[in-house]
Amino acid sequence: MLQSQLFTKTSKTTPKDEVSISSQLLIKAGYIDKLMSGVYTYLPLGYLVLKNIEKIIREEIQLINAQEILMPSLTPKDPWVKTGRWKTFTDLYKLTDANKKDVALAATHEEVITPLAKKFIDSYRDLPTYIFQIQNKFRSELRAKSGLIRGREFIMKDLYSFHQDANDLEKYYQKVIKAYNKIFTRCEIDKNTFFTFASGGTFSKYSHEFQTTSEAGEDSIHICTNCKTAINKEIKTEQKNCPVCNKNKFELKKSIEVGNIFKLGEKYSRAFKFEYIDKNGKAKPIIMGCYGIGLGRLLSTIVELNNDQGGIIWPKETTPFQTHLINIDNEKTAKELYKKLEQEGISILYDDRNLSAGIKLNDSDLMGIPIRIISSQRNKDKFELKIRNKKETTEYGLNQIINKVKNYYA
Amino acid sequence: MLQSQLFTKTSKTTPKDEVSISSQLLIKAGYIDKLMSGVYTYLPLGYLVLKNIEKIIREEIQLINAQEILMPSLTPKDPWVKTGRWKTFTDLYKLTDANKKDVALAATHEEVITPLAKKFIDSYRDLPTYIFQIQNKFRSELRAKSGLIRGREFIMKDLYSFHQDANDLEKYYQKVIKAYNKIFTRCEIDKNTFFTFASGGTFSKYSHEFQTTSEAGEDSIHICTNCKTAINKEIKTEQKNCPVCNKNKFELKKSIEVGNIFKLGEKYSRAFKFEYIDKNGKAKPIIMGCYGIGLGRLLSTIVELNNDQGGIIWPKETTPFQTHLINIDNEKTAKELYKKLEQEGISILYDDRNLSAGIKLNDSDLMGIPIRIISSQRNKDKFELKIRNKKETTEYGLNQIINKVKNYYA
Repeated sequence: MLQSQLFTKTSKTTPKDEVSISSQLLIKAGYIDKLMSGVYTYLPLGYLVLKNIEKIIREEIQLINAQEILMPSLTPKDPWVKTGRWKTFTDLYKLTDANKKDVALAATHEEVITPLAKKFIDSYRDLPTYIFQIQNKFRSELRAKSGLIRGREFIMKDLYSFHQDANDLEKYYQKVIKAYNKIFTRCEIDKNTFFTFASGGTFSKYSHEFQTTSEAGEDSIHICTNCKTAINKEIKTEQKNCPVCNKNKFELKKSIEVGNIFKLGEKYSRAFKFEYIDKNGKAKPIIMGCYGIGLGRLLSTIVELNNDQGGIIWPKETTPFQTHLINIDNEKTAKELYKKLEQEGISILYDDRNLSAGIKLNDSDLMGIPIRIISSQRNKDKFELKIRNKKETTEYGLNQIINKVKNYYA
Repeated sequence: MLQSQLFTKTSKTTPKDEVSISSQLLIKAGYIDKLMSGVYTYLPLGYLVLKNIEKIIREEIQLINAQEILMPSLTPKDPWVKTGRWKTFTDLYKLTDANKKDVALAATHEEVITPLAKKFIDSYRDLPTYIFQIQNKFRSELRAKSGLIRGREFIMKDLYSFHQDANDLEKYYQKVIKAYNKIFTRCEIDKNTFFTFASGGTFSKYSHEFQTTSEAGEDSIHICTNCKTAINKEIKTEQKNCPVCNKNKFELKKSIEVGNIFKLGEKYSRAFKFEYIDKNGKAKPIIMGCYGIGLGRLLSTIVELNNDQGGIIWPKETTPFQTHLINIDNEKTAKELYKKLEQEGISILYDDRNLSAGIKLNDSDLMGIPIRIISSQRNKDKFELKIRNKKETTEYGLNQIINKVKNYYA
């Protein structure tokens, strides 16, 4: 894409109402725009990153055999009353529709998916079943101050699983843990992300979270110095020792909850009388699990972990473009490389703007595309390549540089 | 995909509360599920069709150089007050957030895109600019009775263009018309879709709609028998003759508005004092256009036009799967073909269920995948191929049938 065509521009001013570094950088670099507290627009660059994250999540969740659907945001009051959450879910947005009926904006989708699955699942032959969506959620947060990390409107991958018994749920639960680890590895936040024990419910003593250590986090976790398992601060008084290795030396850190998995058990199936007929013809309650990842929060977390004084440093799979090609004063050569890289299937943002080298290089650092290539008279027929998080630059000829870029993303 | 794994099932019962054939068929075949009046879930098959339609629209809109973003649904009251629509837009869902502030669920996005574009567009050098999104809209419709054709929550592609003057807007307007025609051609509803003159505003005498003739439609159009241009019934009393050929013989038909394009002129730029500096240093108001297509409505319209007694008949580009492979009693051969077709990049729904041939063939007709292939002992090592909207069946060997399928989609 030609950068001159991009309708957004970078900004030098740090937005005063944003406390997290990720939100400040994402706004300054033109990835997102704040509409109101906790509510953001994804601009063209941000939308490309969001789509990359969506692709990673979709691929890994499809690999564990989940089927994708799309549930609505407007939901009737009745199922929320059935589960008791019309009263207890304090962040639920409630409104009245044209027929004077009460409706809620879905803050989560157990109240929709459970009656929906009940329409199709009758027998043990229909189980297990895994269903997911990537969809908007709404929560009327009193303090939405951390940018995309805690929004009032946010995009979530929510997966629900339906089982005959706790054993079968446990098997799938383990598969989801592996899938989540792959997602966080592909997003390059795995080294800072800890499998965390958190409060459970009546069915299971614990739920589990994936917590990424960061000063921008609103959570706190105790990380076991021996096995690196973490415990959410909320349950630390009850849970003295590490539930995995039983040691009791921990390091306390602030963290962002990038994923959450929960054994719901019979909670929602009981509320909706959702049963199946087992092999012996007996009716039994369905056992459920639910598994969430917030896409905007994940995007922000990636930025929280990958930035420097100059701006963002995107991991390979999430970058909006694979290469940032900057023409200083050698347009003909730059255009030639632009064309060739596109032919090779490499995505490029080509800075063809009539601006000073300084402005262009600063913008490039701020935007954070992993590979920067400069075309300038000084280098004659060669190009200067720099990896965003390294200091050195190297000169390459046309064919060499194409191979360098391809190898980087291979 | 193995049909035994699909969590939805077909239903024989026609839903009593659905009046349109498309909604009845989409529900019976397991494409969508009704949550409440005007609010639906896209089930796995429906979601695949929705994604296909999204792909067609995105490709054609990107070809006319629009940049994709994603705006939120929660919007502050203030911009709606500025444009006067907080009071006049009767279908607007209004609610209160955690801080007791009034917000609206966006029913359209002029109130968001205009102040957003104003942040980045200052000069004639920044113009023209084209921005689109594919996103949820909410309208508190009193009567939402036509399934996906008129929903309370619905997915829309909305495109906005920003120009220096009316001439430049006109040029882009013509490009959008061509892009829309390509979209409707790829969805195979072009023969029934008419370019329609509808009421304009202060800036332009007319807006234009793309109306598809259908008994399920809530609109009525007068189609010129000479040049096939249509006039929306709403303006027929003012507009006696055809605005294109000036003849006055028309045919009145019910129709569905599948697309709408509108010259907004200065309406929203004035409300937000959105100006640019022209070549002579003068401040001038931005000239805007807006262009919408409802994805669910388009999906329903395709079904309204393409069905028979047995069920849906999908066009090539929108079908959830390219081939429906049905095993009657020759599983080994069916599996072999399933594998080979997948290797060739053909998407297949493979009915591996342990059910009678009659049930499977009825389900296949109802679901409407364009190519049906039967594997049965009767045909020995051959397969029986049937095109959904044709009567005859033909037998082919393994390699032959792969070529037949590939050629059909070539």
